[in-house]
Amino acid sequence: MSNHSAIDFIKTNIADNVGIVSNPSGLEKGTHLSNGIVLTEDIPMGHKLALEDLQQGDRVIRYGQIIGFTKTTITKGSWLNELNIEMPQPPELKDITYKKSETISQPPLEGYTFQGYKNADGSVGTKNVLAITESVQCVAGIANYVTQKIKKELLPLYPNVDDVVSLGHSYGCGVAIDVAAALVPIRTIKHIAQNPNFGDETMIIGLGCEKLRPERLLRDGDRNVNDTILYLQDEAFSGFEEIIDGIMKMAEDHLKRLNQKRRVTCPASDLVVGMQCGGSDAFSGLTANPAAGFASDLIVRAGGTVMFSEVTEVRDAIHLLVPRAENEQVAEALKNEMAWYDDYLFKGLADRSANTTPGNKKGGLSNIVEKALGSVAKSGTSTIVDVVSPGEKIKKKGLNFVATPSSDFVCGTLQLAAGMNVHVFMTGRGTPYGLPMVPVIKVSSNSKLSNRWFDLIDFDAGPIAFGTKTIEEMGWALFHLILDVASGTKKIATDKIGLYNDLVLFNPGPLT
Amino acid sequence: MSNHSAIDFIKTNIADNVGIVSNPSGLEKGTHLSNGIVLTEDIPMGHKLALEDLQQGDRVIRYGQIIGFTKTTITKGSWLNELNIEMPQPPELKDITYKKSETISQPPLEGYTFQGYKNADGSVGTKNVLAITESVQCVAGIANYVTQKIKKELLPLYPNVDDVVSLGHSYGCGVAIDVAAALVPIRTIKHIAQNPNFGDETMIIGLGCEKLRPERLLRDGDRNVNDTILYLQDEAFSGFEEIIDGIMKMAEDHLKRLNQKRRVTCPASDLVVGMQCGGSDAFSGLTANPAAGFASDLIVRAGGTVMFSEVTEVRDAIHLLVPRAENEQVAEALKNEMAWYDDYLFKGLADRSANTTPGNKKGGLSNIVEKALGSVAKSGTSTIVDVVSPGEKIKKKGLNFVATPSSDFVCGTLQLAAGMNVHVFMTGRGTPYGLPMVPVIKVSSNSKLSNRWFDLIDFDAGPIAFGTKTIEEMGWALFHLILDVASGTKKIATDKIGLYNDLVLFNPGPLT
Repeated sequence: MSNHSAIDFIKTNIADNVGIVSNPSGLEKGTHLSNGIVLTEDIPMGHKLALEDLQQGDRVIRYGQIIGFTKTTITKGSWLNELNIEMPQPPELKDITYKKSETISQPPLEGYTFQGYKNADGSVGTKNVLAITESVQCVAGIANYVTQKIKKELLPLYPNVDDVVSLGHSYGCGVAIDVAAALVPIRTIKHIAQNPNFGDETMIIGLGCEKLRPERLLRDGDRNVNDTILYLQDEAFSGFEEIIDGIMKMAEDHLKRLNQKRRVTCPASDLVVGMQCGGSDAFSGLTANPAAGFASDLIVRAGGTVMFSEVTEVRDAIHLLVPRAENEQVAEALKNEMAWYDDYLFKGLADRSANTTPGNKKGGLSNIVEKALGSVAKSGTSTIVDVVSPGEKIKKKGLNFVATPSSDFVCGTLQLAAGMNVHVFMTGRGTPYGLPMVPVIKVSSNSKLSNRWFDLIDFDAGPIAFGTKTIEEMGWALFHLILDVASGTKKIATDKIGLYNDLVLFNPGPLT
Repeated sequence: MSNHSAIDFIKTNIADNVGIVSNPSGLEKGTHLSNGIVLTEDIPMGHKLALEDLQQGDRVIRYGQIIGFTKTTITKGSWLNELNIEMPQPPELKDITYKKSETISQPPLEGYTFQGYKNADGSVGTKNVLAITESVQCVAGIANYVTQKIKKELLPLYPNVDDVVSLGHSYGCGVAIDVAAALVPIRTIKHIAQNPNFGDETMIIGLGCEKLRPERLLRDGDRNVNDTILYLQDEAFSGFEEIIDGIMKMAEDHLKRLNQKRRVTCPASDLVVGMQCGGSDAFSGLTANPAAGFASDLIVRAGGTVMFSEVTEVRDAIHLLVPRAENEQVAEALKNEMAWYDDYLFKGLADRSANTTPGNKKGGLSNIVEKALGSVAKSGTSTIVDVVSPGEKIKKKGLNFVATPSSDFVCGTLQLAAGMNVHVFMTGRGTPYGLPMVPVIKVSSNSKLSNRWFDLIDFDAGPIAFGTKTIEEMGWALFHLILDVASGTKKIATDKIGLYNDLVLFNPGPLT
């Protein structure tokens, strides 16, 4: 192949001195590009080609930002990757002062709605699920057993309830329960139980002797402890069958109440969307994340709530985020979350180069700076109204930064706790990631993936790379898909098959 | 109730100045004991009563060891608990010098056998299980889905295979993979896959872009990577159905080989028994743990392997364990594991008082010193031949200390990695803990629990408290039960019902 088409590579910003190979088969050595450059070597799809001759130590510019410095002399038309790019130092937090960026305010969006389940606390569910949480992993065997039994024997009798889900986790005992770090997993478990999709009917199975007292998982003013918590060690139960009978009876009461719920028309302002990416490639920051960012802005304009996360993936782009903070307080909170994580990694003897994965590099992301610049694209351009610590719940409508690790399953778990009712997940390399609690819309960054994984991907942002669709068009399409999925009228891939990941807690504290 | 029976309380050691209330209903204020003491208050079962008048600051002695100092004046016949006992300082590791204790060597036991599955590496399985492990949590949805499908569609065709089990975990990506601490979870995942019950046929499902490369989970000299690892991102697969077909084909090959295995007579020296306790009460150290310790000595005399664990539960009794080390090197290794954990807890801002649980205290264990003294009883009296770090495999026959956190599910996960083929689990408060990989024999410390949980407890060590059975008799009975369970002729409670906990890794390193 040595065609001259303009869609062989993409330049993200006028200032860039690298292009991203967009041809699905990559580009071969000797290919003449439309700009006159001849490739000096084979370059795979998603990888960077030098658009200029570069000396050793020259700046490598993508997204109009420095993503590193050349380690050697690079001829134009050559391949730039983690082997010949030196990573720049991260922005020093203390050097970043807050000055609010000027934003062109966009008009509010009116009239967009979805069909949701309204809760007493004002939150809105996109599914009507009976959740069974636990105070400690010890009870997981019984929780899983009884969840299956409820699904089989009781759920069919309550047609307005969508599912029964066990909120299993690895915490609750054998941990230093009184250290400050323990607050993170404890409030995560507590707040997941309050996710809008559970209609304030979450049951709690406790053991009896565990460190994490089940009562700590209750909401303030919860109706009735006896109706919500069951202890396996309760001396009223003689053996396994009686324990199961006890849980089944409790489940019936909860199912009866959930079964009275009906979907009603809700404004798009009731959406709480968790944005996340995982298994990113060089297209993620060109296609999927910008489309998600556009949709994010639409949701915010409609009065809704959007969260983005992944501290180590925004850390290197933090200088671009601070000016987007609503005020000085929010800017400080952003920097504080970065500082907390810097310290956490330092104490764990890890550095930020730990973030990029082998798959990222194979996909063309040379380092965390390049990954971060692409990652923040999913936050769109809205003002950041609040910063939420790991395991805490979102308090304000609009764009929130929810501080989480970048691990897909840990981030998703914390976004559930923050209160998301729709999850949007961008991927370039592909992952079957799914959750039973909240629908996960999977967006591919390239059409090669969505063609191959036709039954695992919900939305293909790939056409943006070839100019056949614009970011704006794809952003609107994704916004409409979010509304349809929230309404239950469109079913996502992992729900059709039943592919679900485990909840994985963030526990910065020690085990004992 | 105010009877005078001698079985109202138990004194563990001649030097003790406290007794343990053994009456199932506790003892009421005013009860006259056989030794003339009159109770000054109600004392619940399992709790300590003062056998002498004590001044403030006096030593409280149980197991012939100091478990603390009185905070106030205590009249004989009063209740001693965490509120009026001050915890002593832990033994300073540097002050403990090694001097081997004199042991009365017991004759080897010959002729005891069980029916097991012999493996090529010399290990012996007690079940014949197809295990499916994963390099990263991302693939858990597909791993769980396909495990169910294999169980339903393929397992019935291979009658000599007992089960198909997914070894799900929370690791593999979003972690600092290059820090020293990462070696612990990585080798744990790798070594669990090599558990004797999987007959060297464990399959590995990888994603493709994760940090933990699936190849790192292979055993040295593993037959064929293509036969053992499947990547979901493999471009050969078009969509979900083809991925599942690929895994099903791989599973068939593995099942065919496993199906050729038959139980054969194996000497008891092929047993590798993991001893653990969880949800302990004051009887654990009187009944269940000493009986397990007796059985442990029998297994060691028969040439077999026993492991005991739980660093924070032996830490305060370490001065009693060091003299039992085979040699100076083993003694140093023991102290090093304690020192590593002291440092880990210190860095995590936790102290050792974090170990005792509300259930322990309710059950009569006032602090970690008292708990530790009861906990080490399950190691019997044998010489400690080796010390194994978390996630490592046992290398020597005989009694091993396998260093793990005390968390039940984390300890069990690490004992699986160490290579146990039978698990013995002592409990006083009660837990439904179970594992699908290896049979878990549940031993209750008191008959009240085993009567109530008649279908969840496998062995009642309670009669020891009332003198109707001796530790020796119960130890022998437990030894025979272990052989029967290892042979598959006796089914344990959690296997009958199907109650299984999750694997929970010990990851001392940070998430990214």
